[in-house]
Amino acid sequence: MINQVMKNSVEEIVRTRRSANNFNSEVKISKKEIGEMFEIAKFAPSAYNLQHANYVVVDELELKLQVKEAAYRQHKVGTASAAILVLGDMEAYTDAERIYDGMYRLGMMDELQFRQTIDFIYAAYQNPEFCKEEAIRNASLSAMQFMLIAKSKGWDTCPMIGFDPQQLRTLLNIPDRYHIVMMMTIGKEKTNHPRPRGYRKPIGEFVHFGAFSS
Amino acid sequence: MINQVMKNSVEEIVRTRRSANNFNSEVKISKKEIGEMFEIAKFAPSAYNLQHANYVVVDELELKLQVKEAAYRQHKVGTASAAILVLGDMEAYTDAERIYDGMYRLGMMDELQFRQTIDFIYAAYQNPEFCKEEAIRNASLSAMQFMLIAKSKGWDTCPMIGFDPQQLRTLLNIPDRYHIVMMMTIGKEKTNHPRPRGYRKPIGEFVHFGAFSS
Repeated sequence: MINQVMKNSVEEIVRTRRSANNFNSEVKISKKEIGEMFEIAKFAPSAYNLQHANYVVVDELELKLQVKEAAYRQHKVGTASAAILVLGDMEAYTDAERIYDGMYRLGMMDELQFRQTIDFIYAAYQNPEFCKEEAIRNASLSAMQFMLIAKSKGWDTCPMIGFDPQQLRTLLNIPDRYHIVMMMTIGKEKTNHPRPRGYRKPIGEFVHFGAFSS
Repeated sequence: MINQVMKNSVEEIVRTRRSANNFNSEVKISKKEIGEMFEIAKFAPSAYNLQHANYVVVDELELKLQVKEAAYRQHKVGTASAAILVLGDMEAYTDAERIYDGMYRLGMMDELQFRQTIDFIYAAYQNPEFCKEEAIRNASLSAMQFMLIAKSKGWDTCPMIGFDPQQLRTLLNIPDRYHIVMMMTIGKEKTNHPRPRGYRKPIGEFVHFGAFSS
């Protein structure tokens, strides 16, 4: 199937992207290259365009080894070119004025529409539980987009949740308003032999038409 | 910039994908085509490969109009070719044996490794709050992958959270174990004039190198 799919197309990237277990530790990634990937990833959708996702990129060896400690010494963190923490801003709604300011100034919304939009957003985000859910949801959308972009640029990634969030929060100076949503290791995968893909459920098991059917 | 980017590449799809506000209501989408997109989307990563994401596809007009009611009568739900509910399975860990059974039977893990893996997964998912977070996180990863695949096949989408979850749960017969993570409308966008893209923060505001910096 893959051979029929256009090289570097979304389909090919999705089909060839694998969560990497081990990386070539000699490969470095430049801040410039990481920045270029985020310049594309930033177009991910987010609720009310609040852009809840934030990232902490750990590419320096010494700090990365401390991150590895907080990730229960997982080998892939040590060998990855960088460990990237994905954060979700639980107070993203407080940026609403700034985010909609441009549209207002450009006349794309009048003052009433502007004020109504801001008020609506503030009202929606008064529930702390919802704020946390939104942080996870929107940061995850952004992270998936980043991982596909990374693959299309030749980089392997692995999304991870196996770490001590409090230890990482202290180490990387992460304010309380940011929920630590996941970690992504990035680098060039080192594989000695082809790994079979993990089992995937047939779509009949997870796609329901019309209403839920079990 | 877009003109320099290869057609249908991940970068081009990410750059051209926009959350649609309005759809051409005369465009139908076939179950076959939706199924083909999920055949690709199923390769999304998930924690422990538990595949938490489930989808309910509403493509029949009458039911779609009821979904529109539950979505505060948003116009785009009525005009979309389908409304797709994204669910996260809060009890996905109970599938662990079945998911790892193949690897065990193929000798890719021995009995001890198999049992340890299953026990580890069950232990990790004993916290209901974590189960919900995992449902949101992993379903969102899957949903973003689906929306990029849809765009690459010529379909526009809009992720949405503006709906009454309880009303949708009843209408679509969704069991309690599934958290309703978001809705995605899908169709062919109908635009009378080019819409400017929403403001995006410069990457210096959401990407931090080394440690968090505000």
